[in-house]
Amino acid sequence: DDAAEGRLKADAACSLCHGHNGVSTLPNAPNLAGQQAIYVSEQLRNYRSGKRQNEVMNMIAKQLTDSEITHLAAWFGSIKVTVETP
Amino acid sequence: DDAAEGRLKADAACSLCHGHNGVSTLPNAPNLAGQQAIYVSEQLRNYRSGKRQNEVMNMIAKQLTDSEITHLAAWFGSIKVTVETP
Repeated sequence: DDAAEGRLKADAACSLCHGHNGVSTLPNAPNLAGQQAIYVSEQLRNYRSGKRQNEVMNMIAKQLTDSEITHLAAWFGSIKVTVETP
Repeated sequence: DDAAEGRLKADAACSLCHGHNGVSTLPNAPNLAGQQAIYVSEQLRNYRSGKRQNEVMNMIAKQLTDSEITHLAAWFGSIKVTVETP
């Protein structure tokens, strides 16, 4: 299914900065675990088109197909997140 | 402290779309719960300067001071998130 395919792609293309479970390993890279799939797709498209600027992300997103974007968004959206406010 | 002040500001300025606990209420608005504070600050500055484009966020961010940005980033970063991959 989309999320499973997205997981494979994410392990290869995203996990270095965004972590294997979508919890980012870099302070200036966002956590993606449980993120809204529609939001993730839109941002990847914006990075691919250049509407949104970030050197690393523009380079990576340029290589993504529409279906890869859909799969990645489904994967990150499928990660369950529970939240506890202080 | 910063997070407590950020919580007050977030309730007023952010919760409509990003939820009271940072879990977004709109599919195209990102979850911010537990997001990296440095990332959140950078995005709010980019929205404020126009480097990053989004009609709603540019309008809101234009009204934010540096310390409000710091407080908001501290607040969202302080929300505890636990993650469970499928």
